[in-house]
Amino acid sequence: MGSERVVVIGGGPAGLAAAAAVADVGSAVTLVEWAPFLGGTPIAENYAALTPNMESAEVAMGRMIDRVTSNELVDVRLGSQVAACEPDGHGFRLELSGDGAGPLHADAVVVATGFQHFDPGRETQMYGYYEFPDVVALQDLEAMLKDHHVVRPSNGQPPERICFVQCVGSRDRQIGNEYCSKVCCGIASKEAIEVRQQLPDCKVFIFYIDMRMYGYWENQIYWPAQEQYHVQYVKGIITEVLQKGDKLLVRGEDTTMGRPMEVTMDLVVLSVGMEPSLGTRLMAKTFGVAQNKYGFIDAAHAPLDTVSTSRPGIFACGAALGPADLEDSVSSAAAAAVRAVAHARSHQPVGA
Amino acid sequence: MGSERVVVIGGGPAGLAAAAAVADVGSAVTLVEWAPFLGGTPIAENYAALTPNMESAEVAMGRMIDRVTSNELVDVRLGSQVAACEPDGHGFRLELSGDGAGPLHADAVVVATGFQHFDPGRETQMYGYYEFPDVVALQDLEAMLKDHHVVRPSNGQPPERICFVQCVGSRDRQIGNEYCSKVCCGIASKEAIEVRQQLPDCKVFIFYIDMRMYGYWENQIYWPAQEQYHVQYVKGIITEVLQKGDKLLVRGEDTTMGRPMEVTMDLVVLSVGMEPSLGTRLMAKTFGVAQNKYGFIDAAHAPLDTVSTSRPGIFACGAALGPADLEDSVSSAAAAAVRAVAHARSHQPVGA
Repeated sequence: MGSERVVVIGGGPAGLAAAAAVADVGSAVTLVEWAPFLGGTPIAENYAALTPNMESAEVAMGRMIDRVTSNELVDVRLGSQVAACEPDGHGFRLELSGDGAGPLHADAVVVATGFQHFDPGRETQMYGYYEFPDVVALQDLEAMLKDHHVVRPSNGQPPERICFVQCVGSRDRQIGNEYCSKVCCGIASKEAIEVRQQLPDCKVFIFYIDMRMYGYWENQIYWPAQEQYHVQYVKGIITEVLQKGDKLLVRGEDTTMGRPMEVTMDLVVLSVGMEPSLGTRLMAKTFGVAQNKYGFIDAAHAPLDTVSTSRPGIFACGAALGPADLEDSVSSAAAAAVRAVAHARSHQPVGA
Repeated sequence: MGSERVVVIGGGPAGLAAAAAVADVGSAVTLVEWAPFLGGTPIAENYAALTPNMESAEVAMGRMIDRVTSNELVDVRLGSQVAACEPDGHGFRLELSGDGAGPLHADAVVVATGFQHFDPGRETQMYGYYEFPDVVALQDLEAMLKDHHVVRPSNGQPPERICFVQCVGSRDRQIGNEYCSKVCCGIASKEAIEVRQQLPDCKVFIFYIDMRMYGYWENQIYWPAQEQYHVQYVKGIITEVLQKGDKLLVRGEDTTMGRPMEVTMDLVVLSVGMEPSLGTRLMAKTFGVAQNKYGFIDAAHAPLDTVSTSRPGIFACGAALGPADLEDSVSSAAAAAVRAVAHARSHQPVGA
């Protein structure tokens, strides 16, 4: 083990996995997180249960956090941000702002700053997220599920009919997000199951273009959602959500039946996609690494090297690179850790 | 760096990535491959171009192979198989058969034995793979694309109309494969683009249930396939393929139009899914690790640990764990390498 140090930026699933992996192979690591806590989006956004195994997000993330904070090779800097990056020998000199102020030498850097949920106010369809209290987004329902208190925000009563609208902010050229956000079909279906578990009398519909339950999500989530939980999947495009009395009127087209559709709902859940987080956009600039047209960090040598960026010594992983599920995030984190450690050690004096 | 040794089984994308990662972080690795060459399925099955970036499979895999074979820490055993595994201290004693015969000590093992294509002879629909020469599978067309010689096997003439039939051997309870094979939508679409590039006058259709172009495959493959290459996507179920004169008659239902469909084609391509390879099934038994009901190796602690099996010290990655694309495979390979190295070193004497 040498004196090399890898700096990991971001304390969510990808950053925690990257930090753990760097330490696992014997290098020192500093984990820089701007929030005052570790755990990233699953904790910040009050996720209830992880996809697909439904384990409590707090418990699962807690295990990852313990693995990192209990490791002597890991130095955690909460409430801290990288403000600037300058070359420093074969590595980098990072200026930190916030609680962890002061310069820091990094022999290699892993950017794991993740995504943010698409803001449904930017949606060009008329879904009324900021107008109608009973129009919510995936993460809003997630927080209600965590509290076991799924209600209509307008009146505090449990809903009798809920629908999910897929592809909000994804697969949409007008908005500029042509990509698919990959996880929303699975997350919506998981939440639909949880709604049926918590409110067995509530009818649940999912309006979708393609149901993208790749790999085991098909058998682990999609089939039980239909067969065991009677979630109703309708291939259709929703064009408009309106308030009508104390209900929501959902308009669109049932594309399987080939006819216009108009249904009333108590709660409409917008399945918002992923966009690069502010941290991802900022770190891309700070480190001078290329971004794709969507603002995510560009994986310069994909598909066989998933984590190298346009700049040697700077690696990225997880949803900072684009839509990613948890398995993608922790796997690519390990890949970034390996590359970062190898880069860092390649410039260390022998025996250091 | 200690005296620990990790044994990686399988020389495809996942195994090569795992071996490279173990060596990258300074541990010795033996790579055991039963075939007389490295590269795995992309080489064995004559893949033309990788998804999604269309780089030559030979060139891309060649780079991975060079990275491994040029590394002094990597010992490659071709034409070799693990015949038995016994506990050996904190690690394992492996008996090798074949060219690399003799026992081998492993402090940890990474199983990267991948998938095999579903055998369309097992399909319960009547697709006629073994009856009609012009019914082929994805990998057959891939080999023709690599040779720039896409023809109807029946007469050697270029086809004027080709269709792909999706979900052959996937999402199918009768066959026992309820899972989605994840990559076939992307591979079929990539091949459809290549057909249009090589045979600009050929009409290309894809019959699908859901078009699962997750993440960037949506914008990188699906949109260009439609807009630039005019591949025609038809949501429909194909129930039967018959020979009619020198054409193939394809019968099913157009589910968007809600009516029966009968079309003639020159070439029908079955988009076969993934099943565990023979190597994956054998190694699961040899190492005594749990398999899921499909025969893939079970990831015991998914989703936040993607690579641990039911047995400490034995890790798995890539398509040995289930349907995986190239990015999944090389990322999970790094994750397996990190865990294997950490496991191996945890039992090494200090300073060894």
